[in-house]
Amino acid sequence: MELTPVLLTREGFAPFGDVIETEGARHYPINEGTTERYHDLARVEALGPEPRVLVSIFVGQPRPQPIALRLVERHPLGSQAFIPLQEQDYLVVVAEAGPDGPGRLHAFRATGRQGVNYRANVWHHPLLVLEPDSRFLVIDRGGVGSNLEEVAIEASLRVAG
Amino acid sequence: MELTPVLLTREGFAPFGDVIETEGARHYPINEGTTERYHDLARVEALGPEPRVLVSIFVGQPRPQPIALRLVERHPLGSQAFIPLQEQDYLVVVAEAGPDGPGRLHAFRATGRQGVNYRANVWHHPLLVLEPDSRFLVIDRGGVGSNLEEVAIEASLRVAG
Repeated sequence: MELTPVLLTREGFAPFGDVIETEGARHYPINEGTTERYHDLARVEALGPEPRVLVSIFVGQPRPQPIALRLVERHPLGSQAFIPLQEQDYLVVVAEAGPDGPGRLHAFRATGRQGVNYRANVWHHPLLVLEPDSRFLVIDRGGVGSNLEEVAIEASLRVAG
Repeated sequence: MELTPVLLTREGFAPFGDVIETEGARHYPINEGTTERYHDLARVEALGPEPRVLVSIFVGQPRPQPIALRLVERHPLGSQAFIPLQEQDYLVVVAEAGPDGPGRLHAFRATGRQGVNYRANVWHHPLLVLEPDSRFLVIDRGGVGSNLEEVAIEASLRVAG
């Protein structure tokens, strides 16, 4: 099965989590009018024993195209957010929840001004970047307990241009 | 009193919080070797009643130089992190804790590959950017209770070049 990504939108991604972007977000001025705050763009979840919110940086490398998709993963104890740090476009692959694991796959192309936040338990492919040394801020959950499930899939992803 | 910023380093900023950067951070490969994870770069604090970790975007505008510093603020119930989204340099002003409020001021110049995380209760100046429409990811605390104290100061900040 070959996927072609569609443009990432809040509406299209709503079943899977949040799109972190200023576009369409609630905002208001602060700091004597020198700053605009686009407020509360992601629902951060940190569940299970001794939860902590972790802030990390991921540096990703592109894969050869068409991209072979061999697994999806999910985090039962917390959300996971990815925010691009160089305004670089990237790819997002998620799966609907099926009765016995991941169901139908969806692929999105995100702009460099959009982050994503996968809700807890949402099946998703690991980071897929388009440019070498692509830096992302990542907000996810640390703590006690197993927070990773992986399932094999077989699909591929082709990106135009 | 006129301040001149020094370069931001983990060591210099340690009394006030974390520098969020890959440089010098613990890291390891994930995702079949396609991604390097620079792990757990900031201690996120969310205290008080019904705490939540908020993810927001701030868009800041520069102030005229020398920059007049008229107040510092602190958040007793949580940390606050700022991460530049366009690799743009910016300025950080913090104050030591004095017996009756903010004490000695310190100014830093951060590169566009460095974020900062102010610990709870650390006095700091609101966002100071060098370029128009400077976008930052902000991770701070929401919930019930008063999480903002402000105190007037009188100082200025001059940036070379």
